[in-house]
Amino acid sequence: MSLKLGVIGTGAIGQDHIRRCSQTLLGSQVVAVTDINLASAAKVGSDLKLSAEVYPDGHALIKAADVEAVLVTSWGPSHEEFVLAAIAAGKPVFCEKPLAVTAAGCRRIVEAEIAHGKRLVQVGFMRPYDAGYQALKAVIDSGQIGEPLMLHCAHRNPRVGENYKTDMAITDTLIHELDVLRWLLADDYVSVQVVFPRKTSKALAHLRDPQIVLLETARGTRIDVEVFVNCQYGYDIQCEVVGESGIARLPEPSQVQLRSEAKLSNAILMDWKDRFIAAYDVELQAFIDGVRAGQVGGPSAWDGFAAAVAADACIEAQGSGQIVKIELPERPGFYA
Amino acid sequence: MSLKLGVIGTGAIGQDHIRRCSQTLLGSQVVAVTDINLASAAKVGSDLKLSAEVYPDGHALIKAADVEAVLVTSWGPSHEEFVLAAIAAGKPVFCEKPLAVTAAGCRRIVEAEIAHGKRLVQVGFMRPYDAGYQALKAVIDSGQIGEPLMLHCAHRNPRVGENYKTDMAITDTLIHELDVLRWLLADDYVSVQVVFPRKTSKALAHLRDPQIVLLETARGTRIDVEVFVNCQYGYDIQCEVVGESGIARLPEPSQVQLRSEAKLSNAILMDWKDRFIAAYDVELQAFIDGVRAGQVGGPSAWDGFAAAVAADACIEAQGSGQIVKIELPERPGFYA
Amino acid sequence: MSLKLGVIGTGAIGQDHIRRCSQTLLGSQVVAVTDINLASAAKVGSDLKLSAEVYPDGHALIKAADVEAVLVTSWGPSHEEFVLAAIAAGKPVFCEKPLAVTAAGCRRIVEAEIAHGKRLVQVGFMRPYDAGYQALKAVIDSGQIGEPLMLHCAHRNPRVGENYKTDMAITDTLIHELDVLRWLLADDYVSVQVVFPRKTSKALAHLRDPQIVLLETARGTRIDVEVFVNCQYGYDIQCEVVGESGIARLPEPSQVQLRSEAKLSNAILMDWKDRFIAAYDVELQAFIDGVRAGQVGGPSAWDGFAAAVAADACIEAQGSGQIVKIELPERPGFYA
Amino acid sequence: MSLKLGVIGTGAIGQDHIRRCSQTLLGSQVVAVTDINLASAAKVGSDLKLSAEVYPDGHALIKAADVEAVLVTSWGPSHEEFVLAAIAAGKPVFCEKPLAVTAAGCRRIVEAEIAHGKRLVQVGFMRPYDAGYQALKAVIDSGQIGEPLMLHCAHRNPRVGENYKTDMAITDTLIHELDVLRWLLADDYVSVQVVFPRKTSKALAHLRDPQIVLLETARGTRIDVEVFVNCQYGYDIQCEVVGESGIARLPEPSQVQLRSEAKLSNAILMDWKDRFIAAYDVELQAFIDGVRAGQVGGPSAWDGFAAAVAADACIEAQGSGQIVKIELPERPGFYA
Repeated sequence: MSLKLGVIGTGAIGQDHIRRCSQTLLGSQVVAVTDINLASAAKVGSDLKLSAEVYPDGHALIKAADVEAVLVTSWGPSHEEFVLAAIAAGKPVFCEKPLAVTAAGCRRIVEAEIAHGKRLVQVGFMRPYDAGYQALKAVIDSGQIGEPLMLHCAHRNPRVGENYKTDMAITDTLIHELDVLRWLLADDYVSVQVVFPRKTSKALAHLRDPQIVLLETARGTRIDVEVFVNCQYGYDIQCEVVGESGIARLPEPSQVQLRSEAKLSNAILMDWKDRFIAAYDVELQAFIDGVRAGQVGGPSAWDGFAAAVAADACIEAQGSGQIVKIELPERPGFYA
Repeated sequence: MSLKLGVIGTGAIGQDHIRRCSQTLLGSQVVAVTDINLASAAKVGSDLKLSAEVYPDGHALIKAADVEAVLVTSWGPSHEEFVLAAIAAGKPVFCEKPLAVTAAGCRRIVEAEIAHGKRLVQVGFMRPYDAGYQALKAVIDSGQIGEPLMLHCAHRNPRVGENYKTDMAITDTLIHELDVLRWLLADDYVSVQVVFPRKTSKALAHLRDPQIVLLETARGTRIDVEVFVNCQYGYDIQCEVVGESGIARLPEPSQVQLRSEAKLSNAILMDWKDRFIAAYDVELQAFIDGVRAGQVGGPSAWDGFAAAVAADACIEAQGSGQIVKIELPERPGFYA
Repeated sequence: MSLKLGVIGTGAIGQDHIRRCSQTLLGSQVVAVTDINLASAAKVGSDLKLSAEVYPDGHALIKAADVEAVLVTSWGPSHEEFVLAAIAAGKPVFCEKPLAVTAAGCRRIVEAEIAHGKRLVQVGFMRPYDAGYQALKAVIDSGQIGEPLMLHCAHRNPRVGENYKTDMAITDTLIHELDVLRWLLADDYVSVQVVFPRKTSKALAHLRDPQIVLLETARGTRIDVEVFVNCQYGYDIQCEVVGESGIARLPEPSQVQLRSEAKLSNAILMDWKDRFIAAYDVELQAFIDGVRAGQVGGPSAWDGFAAAVAADACIEAQGSGQIVKIELPERPGFYA
Repeated sequence: MSLKLGVIGTGAIGQDHIRRCSQTLLGSQVVAVTDINLASAAKVGSDLKLSAEVYPDGHALIKAADVEAVLVTSWGPSHEEFVLAAIAAGKPVFCEKPLAVTAAGCRRIVEAEIAHGKRLVQVGFMRPYDAGYQALKAVIDSGQIGEPLMLHCAHRNPRVGENYKTDMAITDTLIHELDVLRWLLADDYVSVQVVFPRKTSKALAHLRDPQIVLLETARGTRIDVEVFVNCQYGYDIQCEVVGESGIARLPEPSQVQLRSEAKLSNAILMDWKDRFIAAYDVELQAFIDGVRAGQVGGPSAWDGFAAAVAADACIEAQGSGQIVKIELPERPGFYA
């Protein structure tokens, strides 16, 4: 029997996930939707030809008898409330990032989940599901480059809009590295420093761009992440792991090699959506399969909390220019 | 409602396709199986937890009321008979290559399908469904390298077993290029010549390896395909299209780049199954979606016939050392 | 003491070599020049600030007491006469390609040199002095890819002028491969076939372009060379050696890698002069060093003859469309 | 007439330069040698078949009437003394790095040279003469990647000996980056910070390895240089320049591409001597040509001083873990 899903929030990402569940993934059906704008929820239901009930709000949806699992794709500040409600109802919940808009909120979710006694929450960090990162992790874990000592990373966007502020380099951009690098290294961050190079003339007046974030892990691995969101040339994600005896690099997306106009070239993607599109499918299929198998896996509430704690420290480091400690409580055995 | 499939032949490839339909693809269920070894068919059904009826033979399966479409994955010489039976029953049929073991057999299928009046047959050539070939075709079709003038291709396997004979370089190996290059160029072959380089010492005594197949198309494009099935180093598929103003090359599979032991390297696959694994999913999903939408697409019976005609000429060219004409009848409007 | 050189022919290539000897290479000085246009020879001498005597013709220059070695950079049809005269005078001679405009002319030089009893002639084939080809040969000779079975090569120019005729694809373009591939493989050609793909629309009416030249060697190695002199995109020399256990590829010229405008790219050269410029220095330095050490080496008169014999067969194959034998007499022990 | 050189110091690097001048470069001859070990100097003279006078010490050699220019390749601590003596004698001097072992010593040379009124000193930093760095600088200067904002660099050696101490990562290793990056950017350093990742288990007990050096320039460009001298896999120099609209990367040394043993690979050099060998020739030829043309160029005494000031700050930063200012006096107009 396919898993009956309720979706809270039918904006862009909500619609994407509904489409995935209906048209691409195996083993689920969307039976319930809601949105702060109910007319929009109803329209999405009919546009996508769902036979889904429209509920007046997230809480009603979560309580609905036929909803077996919940996708939270609403406005960020509402995530905590709905995730806590899903846990209270004992229903598995996939929550788009951020898990909560504060570390304290994430912590409350962690505690609720522990009190419940079983994992229910998967956070929507998709990079660990990307085939490239998985291949990179496999190389690290195989031991063929020895222990990782340094990571050189970059997260570049061609350009950003007016709404993008300097701290969003952390909360919207770096957040993906904060999650995936912890997973890649199976290690925690202990400090962060942010330095600001000369500002690019292509950035709007209010934005400091680029930035370099320097992280240190508990095992002493040093990570530098260049965040450059007006780099013009492409959406480009780089990750190079320097180990004791060799270096492994995240694969570039596979492209046709061209010899043309005095250049030997491969295309670089311009749109971030194209870069991890397959990973979104894999992550949500993993949630569906996990719930059906009675074992929610993937990025946990603890991972969401750890990312939030690190992000808070990064923002402090942006402001102070100092080396800021990242103090994560001891990991509960529950998440071991 | 999901499409009800009957599968004729539950050997390795049959089991793969059944697993695909049950566990990976959307919109189908296997309701009927058969095999020359009925016990095997029954075992596959129970191993894969299908609720599928075991039929005494392919004809009974094809006639079964609840079988809406048929997968033919039996022994090659039986393909023609079952495909013709499916057409006679008016049921869509996906047939693993070869469509028939002779060009005449393929022709009979073509004629039966035309007589039926609507496409029912999709041949199991998976390369047109590979993301790399699709990207390469998109580059050609975009006009950015101008008209294609030459193709330089290679099909290399690390090694082959004792059963592999010189003509299988055509029927088992080159056959994929014979299909995909016609599709890539939207053109037909008009002649072929085969030359034999110095034989590799790694090949068994009875086998001439490598071989170079030189094809010419109706529009005058020249194709060279190196077939080298004991190349030792990897399973490697190369395709370079030289156009009037530029050159496009089939992407290499995406791999982690390593700096290690005095080498900057990317892994090369050793097993052909890893190379086109995603394409098998896409091809079969396309069949399922096509049938459900009432429009069978993909490699047609005519494409199967054209590949068979070309393969016959290649085998003649292997033997004679001469330039052999490839004479394909005019393409029926039905397949335009 | 530096080697005293006389230069016959002060056109473009003559001036280049004079400049090399005067300003870049070690151990030589140009003491004598001549040209069919004596005023030009005098002007070159004064422009390049040589203290060189202008001789009325090549024969006078060759006989001059202080001329220790001769560079022949005059019009092709005059090469044979001057090389023979240098041999008669017992003076080492570096002759730009072609050694003679006919195979018979090359043969006369071979015989004269054998009669003289010691090597005096170096032919101006520069590719064996290219660092890339040398690295490729080192890989082959190391045995790490096993015995060479096939070579896939390309010789591409962005475009050619009106004077370039179809047979010049052999005598001006392929001639470099005819020389360097014999050297690379230490093998001789035994047959050739030329096929003409669909003609590019970028070529002038009188020119058949591209062409594919298929060569077979005495040891059975098969070579395909794509000659495409209006490829638009660059001057591009490719050479891939397929061995029994691996494949080695001629290095691409080293370039800055760029990420820019949605492309990851490396520049491709547009001008052939940039591609082998260092090799010209190395080849001429080798001649100077060889003469001073009493041992002329590098491409020999026999190599010049072998290239001429192969080129004649290629031109015949262009015309006939047939497989043409390349019959080289047995190599004299003198050139072993 | 060729330039008459005197060489002070006939150890390994001295012999290399003597061999260069005698056998590879144009326009110079070594007429005088000396060494702290006179017997060694004499032996080098006879081994290399120089007709060179052996002088009792550097000062005698500098004063010798027929010595027109001086190469200082003696023990580091003696450099300053000999360079000052050469300036006092008004003779051009090429001094291997370091120009002096203290910044104060370099400053004294700068002042002596200014007092002399004309450039006499070229410091032996060879990287600006490397074809790859020159190509990279040409890309930057062309404006095609916009203003440089960040540099990501690495300097990796397979391993180092017991004598190599933590501060030598600055004075012997990073010193090359300190020179070449100033030249590349035409900018000066203003601060430095050093962070120590987890130590590699391959380093000896007394050595902290790897290190990351974070530099800031006057224009705000941020540079990170990974120094890793026990990386095992190769001698590897990386330099990536992130500009406002694109990224340019130092070319990898050109190598044969291999497909072999399940890998697509290019060799990485293991020995640093192979990496910049051509640059040593070019740098010394530039000195010879410069002196003969009456214009000493290349890395100046000021550049040597600037590198020394930066290196001192780096060593302080290694010890303190703090951000250390790099305070270079205003550049004298003499060196503009």
